[in-house]
Amino acid sequence: MNLLSMLPGLPGVGSAERFDALLSRPGLRIERIVSRGQASPAGFWYDQTDGEWVLVLAGAARLRFEDETDARLLGPGDWVDIDPHRRHRVDWTDPAVATIWLAVFYR
Amino acid sequence: MNLLSMLPGLPGVGSAERFDALLSRPGLRIERIVSRGQASPAGFWYDQTDGEWVLVLAGAARLRFEDETDARLLGPGDWVDIDPHRRHRVDWTDPAVATIWLAVFYR
Repeated sequence: MNLLSMLPGLPGVGSAERFDALLSRPGLRIERIVSRGQASPAGFWYDQTDGEWVLVLAGAARLRFEDETDARLLGPGDWVDIDPHRRHRVDWTDPAVATIWLAVFYR
Repeated sequence: MNLLSMLPGLPGVGSAERFDALLSRPGLRIERIVSRGQASPAGFWYDQTDGEWVLVLAGAARLRFEDETDARLLGPGDWVDIDPHRRHRVDWTDPAVATIWLAVFYR
């Protein structure tokens, strides 16, 4: 599957957030996530056992860390390495276009 | 560093192939590679100990496996998982634009 295909908002794909597993190995998982306006629920923080290296391929998002005052605005080519248990949330993704994330979860 | 910045062929960057380490952990390495017309030397095959999951972010390339007749033409959003020791080479990258690879090497 090409990572720029099957995007929510396109005809026949629907508008729900999509999660596609691309690779699954012991201690390693590569996943494509496509958002279209979705954000984390109010008050929700991710608190993950694994590290997560995440890249925005397309679109725009605001990623917030509990230990930082301001959310980070991420666009195509921007990436972040999120340490295990570093609490974070997605404050916003652009509702007008698909935001495509590539996430590498590692132990 | 934004992955779409510092591209060979841009003013001040030079034209050599670039390798940028993005993450290095035991058994895991994430790297950006930017080619601009470079290909593997004639007769050379990569034969790697690690697995390699590789994605083309921009540009165009022809990736060839020794066990396949035809090279695969890869463009933005195309990815391939290369098993350890599966011999492969880059036959061609587009000389007119930067070809940006994201490579995840894993044990």
